[in-house]
Amino acid sequence: MVVLLDQTRLPVEEAELVCADVPALVAAIRSLAVRGAPVLGVAGGYGVALAAARRFDVAEAAEQLAHARPTAVNLAYGARRVEAAYREAAGGGAAHAAARALAAARELHREDAEASARMAGHGRELLAGLVPGGGLRILTHCNTGRLVSGGEGTALAVVKAVHRAGELRRLWVGETRPLLQGSRLTAYEAAEAGMAYSVLADGAAGSLFAAGEVDAVLVGADRIAADGSVANKVGTYPLAVLAGHHGVPFVVVAPVTTIDPDTETGSGIEVEQRAAHEVTVGPGPGSGPAGAGGGPALAPVGAHAYNPAFDVTPSALVTAVVTDEGTASPVTAAGIAELCSTSRKRASRSANGMMKA
Amino acid sequence: MVVLLDQTRLPVEEAELVCADVPALVAAIRSLAVRGAPVLGVAGGYGVALAAARRFDVAEAAEQLAHARPTAVNLAYGARRVEAAYREAAGGGAAHAAARALAAARELHREDAEASARMAGHGRELLAGLVPGGGLRILTHCNTGRLVSGGEGTALAVVKAVHRAGELRRLWVGETRPLLQGSRLTAYEAAEAGMAYSVLADGAAGSLFAAGEVDAVLVGADRIAADGSVANKVGTYPLAVLAGHHGVPFVVVAPVTTIDPDTETGSGIEVEQRAAHEVTVGPGPGSGPAGAGGGPALAPVGAHAYNPAFDVTPSALVTAVVTDEGTASPVTAAGIAELCSTSRKRASRSANGMMKA
Repeated sequence: MVVLLDQTRLPVEEAELVCADVPALVAAIRSLAVRGAPVLGVAGGYGVALAAARRFDVAEAAEQLAHARPTAVNLAYGARRVEAAYREAAGGGAAHAAARALAAARELHREDAEASARMAGHGRELLAGLVPGGGLRILTHCNTGRLVSGGEGTALAVVKAVHRAGELRRLWVGETRPLLQGSRLTAYEAAEAGMAYSVLADGAAGSLFAAGEVDAVLVGADRIAADGSVANKVGTYPLAVLAGHHGVPFVVVAPVTTIDPDTETGSGIEVEQRAAHEVTVGPGPGSGPAGAGGGPALAPVGAHAYNPAFDVTPSALVTAVVTDEGTASPVTAAGIAELCSTSRKRASRSANGMMKA
Repeated sequence: MVVLLDQTRLPVEEAELVCADVPALVAAIRSLAVRGAPVLGVAGGYGVALAAARRFDVAEAAEQLAHARPTAVNLAYGARRVEAAYREAAGGGAAHAAARALAAARELHREDAEASARMAGHGRELLAGLVPGGGLRILTHCNTGRLVSGGEGTALAVVKAVHRAGELRRLWVGETRPLLQGSRLTAYEAAEAGMAYSVLADGAAGSLFAAGEVDAVLVGADRIAADGSVANKVGTYPLAVLAGHHGVPFVVVAPVTTIDPDTETGSGIEVEQRAAHEVTVGPGPGSGPAGAGGGPALAPVGAHAYNPAFDVTPSALVTAVVTDEGTASPVTAAGIAELCSTSRKRASRSANGMMKA
């Protein structure tokens, strides 16, 4: 079984959600009990390993997991990679192949933790060059910390490194409506780490920029197209436009597996549209996902809602893309291709190493 | 007594709030049971009339009401105008002066309704010139309808006129966190009027602009400085920046009494900072103001919040200011001064008319 920290219950309680089979895991992914691009990759990988261990149809499991949500490319990456490990080992029998699938999922998990650490290092280095010294006031959106990663996360891993170095003056946490991943999850991690932080309604970010209170914006990504366009949690694009208007660096932090070379431009990224009740019904008394917990009506009964889960920021508004394989800045198709090629070289070196061993 | 529709209970119920004295009315204004610049002026006026009728200290009542909230200039305008009517009539005895104060408050109320109708006319005219024909897709923020006005409101009065003329394709309603005046109040008025409308998280506006789904942005104002800078509900400025970035007209609709010639520039506008619980605690089960109804925690206990009630949009980002006295476009200090001078001339003609009668 796969055991997840149910993110929809935070910050009210730390509840575990046990998924005994692939449909249960797919449901957990769709309800956002587990969410965030990197950890979706890990969850997809463990899901395929689970199917292998329980002798379910592994190809079908990988297919279901890869398509549980359409935007994050890591989900499909994780599921497909573990499926490939299983297939390669299939000749040795089901038990052997299942063991190899689990090993591949664990490897993915470990790599994700290492990738976090490398992103944190590259990000700190970039900020030191981009923003003159003194305490940094960083604005972030959604949640990109340890809850989305085998390690410390993506953008929030950078913030944590900056904080540990004593260089963080304040973390501004956009609450991230409708599901409040900022105020529920990022604030939770910021409090845990002892950072000075403030939550704000997403619309209040404009006032912060106008008052000169933001030194840099750091966000994650759910998919990066070959041209450097970034799909991320809805509300990211307005922050990029504000940052551009005010000359504030706008930095995207994501593992290189978030880059999808097969998606040429931002307009090719499919954006998931989610249910109206996430916007029109408030969180219930026991927290949990909006609309699911019997919360109060926030709009007239039957109100239509426009509720895209993500938006797309064109590369021209992105100051830098920081990955585990290095940083692209300025963000160009060539720079993005170079990151992917570094990643392939490392993978090939690592595969050679394994073969030699 | 002053009887108000308690806006914090909408859309769950239409509850009346009875204010028997000035402190109760001040409390209602502070809790946003009554809110919106034009109706605050009317409420301030009736409050002074109430003090006069009950033989309280009228000067003190006017002072308390004028300062109940710092940003909307109409509140002080309404209170001061009725106080002046009272003072002028004071020689005739308390009962006579109280009657004159009530008459002045009613006059203010009636003028506000007429101003709405004139704004609606000017606004429709402007949109016909700015945006090529066909159904309009208008994005609005906060609530600017009949709940804030003796008439149909400001920006929403224009939308209603466009809708009645069969020229509205869709009203996009930004939910307006933290207090959700968009989804709670504007959606309520849109549904009532039979408009095609959708509510959205404030951060989702970026996707709408990027998709070319917004023909014009229409918002109200709480104070307009002499240079044409506009203080309005927090979240307005990001919409102005997005509209500018996408070449979409950004139109402010407000009665001329919202202009404060004594505030030279936007930086001179005092912005009210409100309590953290509006952001960190969700709406309670019986609706009511956020944080007041025992709603769920949306952030860790003790989380700090940045919660300005308003933001300021510089005139360069405002395509037009539509008032009951006409439209300034482009928005310049001279154009704003001209609107004020038209208003003074009308007031002086009306005073002469009254003296002759």
